[in-house]
Amino acid sequence: MCTAITYSPKNFYFGRTLDADTNYSADVVTTPRGFLFENIECRHAIIGAAIVSGGRPLFFDGMNECGVCMAGLNFGSARYFSEREGMLNLAQYELLPYILGNCTSAAEATAELGRINITTKRFAPDMPPAPLHWLVADRESAFTAECMEGGMRICKNTVGVLTNDPPFACHMRGLSNYMHLTAAPPQNLFGAEGAEEYCAGLGAFGLPGDMSSPSRFIRAAFVRANAPSGLAGNAAVSQFFAMLSAVAVPCGACNTARGRFFTRYMCCMDAAEGVYYITPHTCRAATAVKISRGDGLTAYAVHRGECILKLNF
Amino acid sequence: MCTAITYSPKNFYFGRTLDADTNYSADVVTTPRGFLFENIECRHAIIGAAIVSGGRPLFFDGMNECGVCMAGLNFGSARYFSEREGMLNLAQYELLPYILGNCTSAAEATAELGRINITTKRFAPDMPPAPLHWLVADRESAFTAECMEGGMRICKNTVGVLTNDPPFACHMRGLSNYMHLTAAPPQNLFGAEGAEEYCAGLGAFGLPGDMSSPSRFIRAAFVRANAPSGLAGNAAVSQFFAMLSAVAVPCGACNTARGRFFTRYMCCMDAAEGVYYITPHTCRAATAVKISRGDGLTAYAVHRGECILKLNF
Amino acid sequence: MCTAITYSPKNFYFGRTLDADTNYSADVVTTPRGFLFENIECRHAIIGAAIVSGGRPLFFDGMNECGVCMAGLNFGSARYFSEREGMLNLAQYELLPYILGNCTSAAEATAELGRINITTKRFAPDMPPAPLHWLVADRESAFTAECMEGGMRICKNTVGVLTNDPPFACHMRGLSNYMHLTAAPPQNLFGAEGAEEYCAGLGAFGLPGDMSSPSRFIRAAFVRANAPSGLAGNAAVSQFFAMLSAVAVPCGACNTARGRFFTRYMCCMDAAEGVYYITPHTCRAATAVKISRGDGLTAYAVHRGECILKLNF
Amino acid sequence: MCTAITYSPKNFYFGRTLDADTNYSADVVTTPRGFLFENIECRHAIIGAAIVSGGRPLFFDGMNECGVCMAGLNFGSARYFSEREGMLNLAQYELLPYILGNCTSAAEATAELGRINITTKRFAPDMPPAPLHWLVADRESAFTAECMEGGMRICKNTVGVLTNDPPFACHMRGLSNYMHLTAAPPQNLFGAEGAEEYCAGLGAFGLPGDMSSPSRFIRAAFVRANAPSGLAGNAAVSQFFAMLSAVAVPCGACNTARGRFFTRYMCCMDAAEGVYYITPHTCRAATAVKISRGDGLTAYAVHRGECILKLNF
Repeated sequence: MCTAITYSPKNFYFGRTLDADTNYSADVVTTPRGFLFENIECRHAIIGAAIVSGGRPLFFDGMNECGVCMAGLNFGSARYFSEREGMLNLAQYELLPYILGNCTSAAEATAELGRINITTKRFAPDMPPAPLHWLVADRESAFTAECMEGGMRICKNTVGVLTNDPPFACHMRGLSNYMHLTAAPPQNLFGAEGAEEYCAGLGAFGLPGDMSSPSRFIRAAFVRANAPSGLAGNAAVSQFFAMLSAVAVPCGACNTARGRFFTRYMCCMDAAEGVYYITPHTCRAATAVKISRGDGLTAYAVHRGECILKLNF
Repeated sequence: MCTAITYSPKNFYFGRTLDADTNYSADVVTTPRGFLFENIECRHAIIGAAIVSGGRPLFFDGMNECGVCMAGLNFGSARYFSEREGMLNLAQYELLPYILGNCTSAAEATAELGRINITTKRFAPDMPPAPLHWLVADRESAFTAECMEGGMRICKNTVGVLTNDPPFACHMRGLSNYMHLTAAPPQNLFGAEGAEEYCAGLGAFGLPGDMSSPSRFIRAAFVRANAPSGLAGNAAVSQFFAMLSAVAVPCGACNTARGRFFTRYMCCMDAAEGVYYITPHTCRAATAVKISRGDGLTAYAVHRGECILKLNF
Repeated sequence: MCTAITYSPKNFYFGRTLDADTNYSADVVTTPRGFLFENIECRHAIIGAAIVSGGRPLFFDGMNECGVCMAGLNFGSARYFSEREGMLNLAQYELLPYILGNCTSAAEATAELGRINITTKRFAPDMPPAPLHWLVADRESAFTAECMEGGMRICKNTVGVLTNDPPFACHMRGLSNYMHLTAAPPQNLFGAEGAEEYCAGLGAFGLPGDMSSPSRFIRAAFVRANAPSGLAGNAAVSQFFAMLSAVAVPCGACNTARGRFFTRYMCCMDAAEGVYYITPHTCRAATAVKISRGDGLTAYAVHRGECILKLNF
Repeated sequence: MCTAITYSPKNFYFGRTLDADTNYSADVVTTPRGFLFENIECRHAIIGAAIVSGGRPLFFDGMNECGVCMAGLNFGSARYFSEREGMLNLAQYELLPYILGNCTSAAEATAELGRINITTKRFAPDMPPAPLHWLVADRESAFTAECMEGGMRICKNTVGVLTNDPPFACHMRGLSNYMHLTAAPPQNLFGAEGAEEYCAGLGAFGLPGDMSSPSRFIRAAFVRANAPSGLAGNAAVSQFFAMLSAVAVPCGACNTARGRFFTRYMCCMDAAEGVYYITPHTCRAATAVKISRGDGLTAYAVHRGECILKLNF
């Protein structure tokens, strides 16, 4: 379970929550221009959250130096296949490095995705490919890529949001049910004597508030569609994290058979500045790392202890 | 619009969001034992968010050295009256200092509240009393105090949550509509072939997600009722802010005729340690101030700039 | 559980569903001018659904010859009291005959209600007073009367709807949450690319559909607020039953500890013509009885077998 | 907009609402064994609601003498094609007569449907094929047939419900969101002090109540899943119409650009007895016609005036 959003108040921002019932101690990882990921050459520098194993980064999400951003989100409807002739066969864990390593725009990425077949090859013997779908975006456009029965389906993502199941087209259909919700005060369509605007926020009454994937999709789309424009610098980053917080899962609010399912980290990528911001659930202050074109793979440990500004003790 | 909650994972925590369509640049203010607030003597030291004017703190919320906590939240149904004989007549802005300055428990506070008449006296000529109701709590119990037509109504608050209108009793009735929602996976009551648990979180499908007062009440009650116990120290504070974030209002998501209505700050009071944590919407890291028994009124400016831990630039 | 509504497409109509988990075999009962109900003289003729015991009708609802209509609906918050001096003390079962027997308008009825104290006197030793509240209406106005802790509360009922708990004021507050719902196509406030009107009816998405009292209140208010005007004769009666059907409870859809809770009958009173229409759940065709000023108490058995118009067998 | 359901309390029943913003004056039409529909021979006798033009019935729904039932419901996602070689090419209006005329079971019908290509051929020059999908069922099983981009898709329909858009698979996904709703009293998962079962029906709080296609789907599935078993004869028919009434659209509650969208008729087919019951919105009593194996095409006019059982006038 995760929620990814895009945001363009002036510059382009992209980020996600990573929600899970197990802990992932991801680092912020940068790979330089020309980095060789197994036999895939990554022409562009990449930065993202990843686990590094045997010198190979297993990216959860990331951004390249051209401002193309990508995040993989859990997707139970995903199907991967054997190698297919005439297609570019990639393991699921190779997809993000391949796309971000070689595409200069989201549009170019979708062209590449159209000829890719995702295989069942494993990152490690005990690590079968996670079922995922992807949000790929730059400041010009956003796309969802879903590899299902019948192969790769690529959809223009006009709302800049992705969560988990069901497939994206089904989310968009569901979103239409809420198109009348507004951040403005509601119109009174019941007649003056029957209703009263007794508190703020009633224009969006009916917005779903639970932690399920379809509800987070609609809530994120609503918050994002109504977000202020014109913000820049730290104000934009603060706003980005405030929007993600509206769909973040607090510990305890969602449990699975395996345990507590909650938001482990939230990240925000500033595509114009090449900065990756991340806040794990144990530290509200964000750790920031800048993309770097040289220097080999570098993993930066995220600050995990709560950062408190004590004034008198 | 605001949301206040209590939380007792081990120690007792109390806090709130302050949501508004105008900016309040509150400081963290401490008043010592014996502080004289106009002609009210405050026997106990107090700490809280306040604006200070003419040496007088106008508290939005606060905690005393006995661990009694209190927050005022906007409440359009509030009615204040002329002075009444046989009652303790207090201006609305005197209520919090009086209660926190003189009560050693929430139970004692409710006894005091029962003999108080809130008057229409103003803090300043241009500051009429804000319509408020209050959440008063310590680790033993919580109460809601509402001064309406017919006088002060005090209710035991068994869910540890308060938002804004309608009156508390109406919120509790509304909450009953959602009593079947769970953080656990849902039971399938439609029959095996008709439904499938295709994503996590479906047990709470139907939880309201908008920013209105009744919806925040239910969402806060749900998140709090399912919060983990046993947490302590920074982990408890992080969890507290994560829960408040689930009801915080991102900028843009709720607008009134006057402008954008959003969460200006969130605070968390650690009653056992006497520490007041606050994060304004411009800074995710919390500022912390410890209650102090001596030293006169002291106002600590909250850190407002985003606090970023930059690792490589 | 029951739902009562008023409807004025041209003439005035009033009716209700009677929902219960036990069967009530009510007749349509008329009482003439001057009927003596125990020691209450009923100046006006009355018609309504009632059980007759010892020559006394126990009315569930009814209408008088002046066009004043009244229905009692289950209300768990009701409180009845001992006799009070200076008030008109009436048993709960005497209230409807007294009001309909003596008031020429709903406005006059509310004046009467203001001086009435409802007592705990029983209709029969084994029949304690049912906890009820009442909708009283004529073509000019409608009122809700609720006898609670603190005595009789009378509210103008501007939406022409009553169901069960909670108190009417709480229903009206809840109704405000839905004031943006419309029978018209929805406005698209999410942006052209994010949503599509893929089916009719989306303007009211969010309307509650369950059988609980607050949900039936809102659904009935919505259907009624959007009902066509100008209908007369059988077309108005058909429309009335169609609206009640939208809040009727099908057998099986709502169960209590005692059994299946469902709509036992629906009725529609035509105030201009003095006709009472009733359809028990076993017969879709309506039985009709006309109010009569003379002739003593008469009980008409309702046709209960399904009425089928067989064309070729 | 329409809703179709199946019901098997003991015998098998099938029916639907026909919701539209224009009036359809359908008759109940029977065609005998061996009826020739253009060049399609119908081996089985059929009964259903239809408009007859030039001796040809345009069926909206129907049943054959083997107990196979079928209804076409509006479906904006439908796509019809040119003739295709190797397939059985049928005009949309030929589909129902072909299937009911030649299949002895729903299972056999799905086998037939798998080799059918629906063409764009018109019933009349001014009558382009309506975009439809179909519910086909007998007492053993039910299926949905949808002809979309990519051809005919046939799904087992395990809930016995069909409405309109989106595609059936999307409805089933949406239904899963409501799997925790119950006709029984709700479990209190908020803690004893936080909630109270103050009225019946709260176990299903959250069930959608608007007139849109996805909301009617879920409401119908809920009512049907909780329907009593064991009913027979008129009691079963009454229950069937009571369930359809819960999803019927009252006039005024749903408007389109063309006008008022409401339920024009409801029907119930008794497969065991071969009887077709229909109630237009102007007459609550049902007209009944029995299927007939001989006698050529016969059209029975439905009784349209309100049928009132007047007892004293």
